[in-house]
Amino acid sequence: MTYELYYWPGIQGRGEFIRLALEEAGVPYRDIAKDPAGEAQAVSKLQAVLGDAKTPHPSFAVPLLKAGDLFISQTANILMYLGAHHGLAPADEAGRIWTNQLQLTIADWVVEIHDTHHPLGPMEYYQDQKQEAHKRAASFLKYRLPKYMGYFETVLKQNPSGEQFLVGSALTYPDLSLFQIIEGLRYALPRNQSRIETKYPKVIDLHDRMLKRPRIAAYLASSRRIPFNEDGLFRHYPELDM
Amino acid sequence: MTYELYYWPGIQGRGEFIRLALEEAGVPYRDIAKDPAGEAQAVSKLQAVLGDAKTPHPSFAVPLLKAGDLFISQTANILMYLGAHHGLAPADEAGRIWTNQLQLTIADWVVEIHDTHHPLGPMEYYQDQKQEAHKRAASFLKYRLPKYMGYFETVLKQNPSGEQFLVGSALTYPDLSLFQIIEGLRYALPRNQSRIETKYPKVIDLHDRMLKRPRIAAYLASSRRIPFNEDGLFRHYPELDM
Repeated sequence: MTYELYYWPGIQGRGEFIRLALEEAGVPYRDIAKDPAGEAQAVSKLQAVLGDAKTPHPSFAVPLLKAGDLFISQTANILMYLGAHHGLAPADEAGRIWTNQLQLTIADWVVEIHDTHHPLGPMEYYQDQKQEAHKRAASFLKYRLPKYMGYFETVLKQNPSGEQFLVGSALTYPDLSLFQIIEGLRYALPRNQSRIETKYPKVIDLHDRMLKRPRIAAYLASSRRIPFNEDGLFRHYPELDM
Repeated sequence: MTYELYYWPGIQGRGEFIRLALEEAGVPYRDIAKDPAGEAQAVSKLQAVLGDAKTPHPSFAVPLLKAGDLFISQTANILMYLGAHHGLAPADEAGRIWTNQLQLTIADWVVEIHDTHHPLGPMEYYQDQKQEAHKRAASFLKYRLPKYMGYFETVLKQNPSGEQFLVGSALTYPDLSLFQIIEGLRYALPRNQSRIETKYPKVIDLHDRMLKRPRIAAYLASSRRIPFNEDGLFRHYPELDM
């Protein structure tokens, strides 16, 4: 079975959290965003799957992973599935729950990052909400970003198995997602990140170790990694990087 | 073992999705928000659990469920646990994944509902973001609310086991959460709901059947149900009910 990943072409977005897990697991997958027939074809395949009037399990949005007969959507849900099947999560119930809890907290963080440039909602362009974005980003930088960064620093500090990983003493999928958040924040808010990162040495150390994992390093150097850009989740608008 | 639910006193908030599942399952729980020593005591218990510098599994926020030795947070995560232990979710992997996927979509909807009155973020008062809230609410009512309502109508329509429940032919925890969303929207946006609900008859029918379930009816009539108010997730600001 080869997995199929359905996500919008041209952006990393939430699809990237799935790609990082697939790449680290070393499992084959077909990335529909990279359809050889081009992006328009990719989008029409994606819309066909989202609009399927016969499926017993309609999806609200992508990312969506086709795993044999299963069509799984919601980022944290897909990662839970991949974690269970490819050794990226503990097998026991308490460990699975804790791993999922961390991923759901990352999902909340992702929404707040998105909302720094789209406080009036996903349907309006950034250009039409620049003033509001400035206010929301200021509040995010002052209160929320330190809260999230500090939380994950605490998780690493209080991990009884040591400070190397978020869960126990081995890599799990939220480690990869936290790596991606740091990459994205550095792209979007470089001035702010360079000022605050020294306060969160354990998080940054985890990021740096993910970067050196052979499969992750190979993926990031490949054409499979879509560059960050201003259509995605992490956007570099210098006026928001206060 | 008696569960303990930690959540802010005085509001339904995200804690209510947990309460509804506990009530329907008929399992005993101690609601820390209703601490007999009063709300200040409840808040200090909650802060003690959130700030515990020794726990191997720190929580970012509440709701949090103490289940024996486990401290579980994130609403969808707690519900997944309760679903598995109290017959509120299918036992097979495909069914568990689908149920979780629906709950995560409800969680996204909840964030968007919250953001109608807090587009500039959770740290600022509504009074300081009324203009922005008006814009965000308008976009929500026009685009996002119909998309979510239509999605759950489609899920019911395409359920191969019939239109009675979201998952298969028995109640699962997202049914209760969808009920709560409709209750909340009716409280927050009564004019809009009275205009749109006829377009989503299957969702409303599900809501109405949840309302009649003996344990849910008994709960709603009890003092355990905190009334809706303007400190919670669903707030009735007539100026946003366009």
